[in-house]
Amino acid sequence: MFPEADAVAPAVTAVFTTVLTEGPLSRVALARRLGLSSAAVTKAARPLIELGYLEELAATERTGPGAGRPASPLAIRADREFFVGVKITGDELIGVVCDLRAEVRTSAHRRLSAPDVDHVLTELGELVGELLDRPGGYRARTRRLGLAVSGDVDRSTGLVRYSPFLRWHDLPLREQAEKITGLTVTVENDVKALTTAEHWFGEGVGAESFALVTVGAGIGCGLVVGGRLVSGSHGVAGEIGHIGIDVNGPACHCGSRGCVEAIAGADAIVRQARSAAGRPELTFDDAVALARAGDAPAGAVFARAGDAIGSGIAAVANLVGPARIVVSGEGLAAYDLFEPHIRAGFQRQAFGAAADCPLSIRPLPFEEWARGAATVSIQALVAS
Amino acid sequence: MFPEADAVAPAVTAVFTTVLTEGPLSRVALARRLGLSSAAVTKAARPLIELGYLEELAATERTGPGAGRPASPLAIRADREFFVGVKITGDELIGVVCDLRAEVRTSAHRRLSAPDVDHVLTELGELVGELLDRPGGYRARTRRLGLAVSGDVDRSTGLVRYSPFLRWHDLPLREQAEKITGLTVTVENDVKALTTAEHWFGEGVGAESFALVTVGAGIGCGLVVGGRLVSGSHGVAGEIGHIGIDVNGPACHCGSRGCVEAIAGADAIVRQARSAAGRPELTFDDAVALARAGDAPAGAVFARAGDAIGSGIAAVANLVGPARIVVSGEGLAAYDLFEPHIRAGFQRQAFGAAADCPLSIRPLPFEEWARGAATVSIQALVAS
Repeated sequence: MFPEADAVAPAVTAVFTTVLTEGPLSRVALARRLGLSSAAVTKAARPLIELGYLEELAATERTGPGAGRPASPLAIRADREFFVGVKITGDELIGVVCDLRAEVRTSAHRRLSAPDVDHVLTELGELVGELLDRPGGYRARTRRLGLAVSGDVDRSTGLVRYSPFLRWHDLPLREQAEKITGLTVTVENDVKALTTAEHWFGEGVGAESFALVTVGAGIGCGLVVGGRLVSGSHGVAGEIGHIGIDVNGPACHCGSRGCVEAIAGADAIVRQARSAAGRPELTFDDAVALARAGDAPAGAVFARAGDAIGSGIAAVANLVGPARIVVSGEGLAAYDLFEPHIRAGFQRQAFGAAADCPLSIRPLPFEEWARGAATVSIQALVAS
Repeated sequence: MFPEADAVAPAVTAVFTTVLTEGPLSRVALARRLGLSSAAVTKAARPLIELGYLEELAATERTGPGAGRPASPLAIRADREFFVGVKITGDELIGVVCDLRAEVRTSAHRRLSAPDVDHVLTELGELVGELLDRPGGYRARTRRLGLAVSGDVDRSTGLVRYSPFLRWHDLPLREQAEKITGLTVTVENDVKALTTAEHWFGEGVGAESFALVTVGAGIGCGLVVGGRLVSGSHGVAGEIGHIGIDVNGPACHCGSRGCVEAIAGADAIVRQARSAAGRPELTFDDAVALARAGDAPAGAVFARAGDAIGSGIAAVANLVGPARIVVSGEGLAAYDLFEPHIRAGFQRQAFGAAADCPLSIRPLPFEEWARGAATVSIQALVAS
């Protein structure tokens, strides 16, 4: 009734994904978890074992009282294949090699002199070469590269429609990166890539719904609902930075006023701190140092920003009700200044039981964005 | 490999749902639409035809050049079964009988003297009896009743956890309504019921994602993402009324300030209109009449309220990116006063392509809530 290919392929993907993100798991546990028969799990696991992606661990448990056959859990062979992930910013490439479980094995940086496409691609080719040639046998077992870029990215075609920081328009990045690296490339928006990493290998594992909020130059958000990344019917989703929380607030680059980003984005913080201190040369780091030294006006700028972020996060909780929310990003290097105000703004604005949603607020190590890019290429393998 | 029952039941449900919401459709079109084989569609349709829910229309088209066999589209037999839907408010019951396609066949009202449970149940029993005894042969073909109640409702157990307007706490409404009516009862939150009606039989048909915003005493929102109603991991979702859009705005009953509902809910509008006119006895209808007569302060109250609703709707579009958004509710009896300001607030705050999301802004006929309740019982049949 169901053609063989239609019936088996989803089971193979489901078994692979579940062992990858939640394993090791016995076949019995997998069958229960996926609502499949044991026979279906065994059949789906077979090609994955033959290809070396899964292995049977030594039997550790029996399946039930008096059961004769010990259960051998299925586990991922993490070093079966490696994946390169690169985050492309306006002035830097950050690259990692990850294994199948998204553990970072090695990493490297390259400064960019300009976001010029040819220059970026040349540097990308050299960075990937450098990473794959490091000791660890990566080159022989790496076929895929994930690229993370901020802005409007069409993952299905690998086209960067618009990236403001890079000033790229309609760039067929996948095609060009495949030419220069010889790898199979997946291109994704950076916040979505980071959300995927957290969903598959971080705090979002097993969550039906989940949100990741990034705090930095912009304020972004990746949303998982019903186990799937929300991408938006009109190409826009997760734009927490442009929720309006103060109709009389400062003008935003989007054309409106009082957006979360117009109060809590890095530029907005610098602008407010300069005005509060009367020092037009103040940098973000100066503002952080002032606030940490107890300067009240600088502290108030971070308090207002944290409160705005918390209010935006409450809008996510009130509307979508994720199981949990992770707040991270390079802006959270100033974690100590933001955190209590993010929590206070969230608690005030979260409606009823929405306030029960756990918030994890934590800094983001610089490699995480690149690991997110690698995760997207792991996902592309699993889907293939 | 897949046990028969597991494999067939989802196909039957899928065929039933698709013909119900998008039919008539040929078997070939259904197979294409659902990613099933033609044989699977034929097998799934058979019991539905035998039970009289589906029928084959006369052949109207051929399946392809030279194809010998004409395609007979499958259609719903709308009068195969009828469904009662009742919206329960604090002072009124509104009831309808719908057919399988959620067309209202007849309707009736009952005033309630108090939201006392026994009184409501007695009136409910009489209302249902009155509806089923009307000409149309409803009684013999009605097995199900849907109830829509505002507040925190657990559809899976039929428990009303808390309904503020009715002042009900932990009421096992399904159980008690089944006893008094003899019908199989489904209980749902009223906004979710209305969203389901719009998703299955209204503007949301075929949309992967979709939002319904209700404007009235409260400002509510039902969200469909990935084809499923979002219910929130912590029991809260769609609370657009408690998105904070003005940190310095009026206090809200939820404990925060400047929520959409604190500016645009019916009570908030009355309060602001009274204060603007210096007339403490002013009603909502008075405020509407004043604004329509050109009174500038009263007009400004509706303008501010509409703008707040538009800003809240933009938060939905920015975060989730629904394919379309319907704005309705009894508050939109003052449609002419709200509409331009809802659109202006939305356009200002929607980020980039999120502004492309079509908004349908329209008044809500009083029977619609009850039709939503009936739709939930149709859904319960299909899932059964």
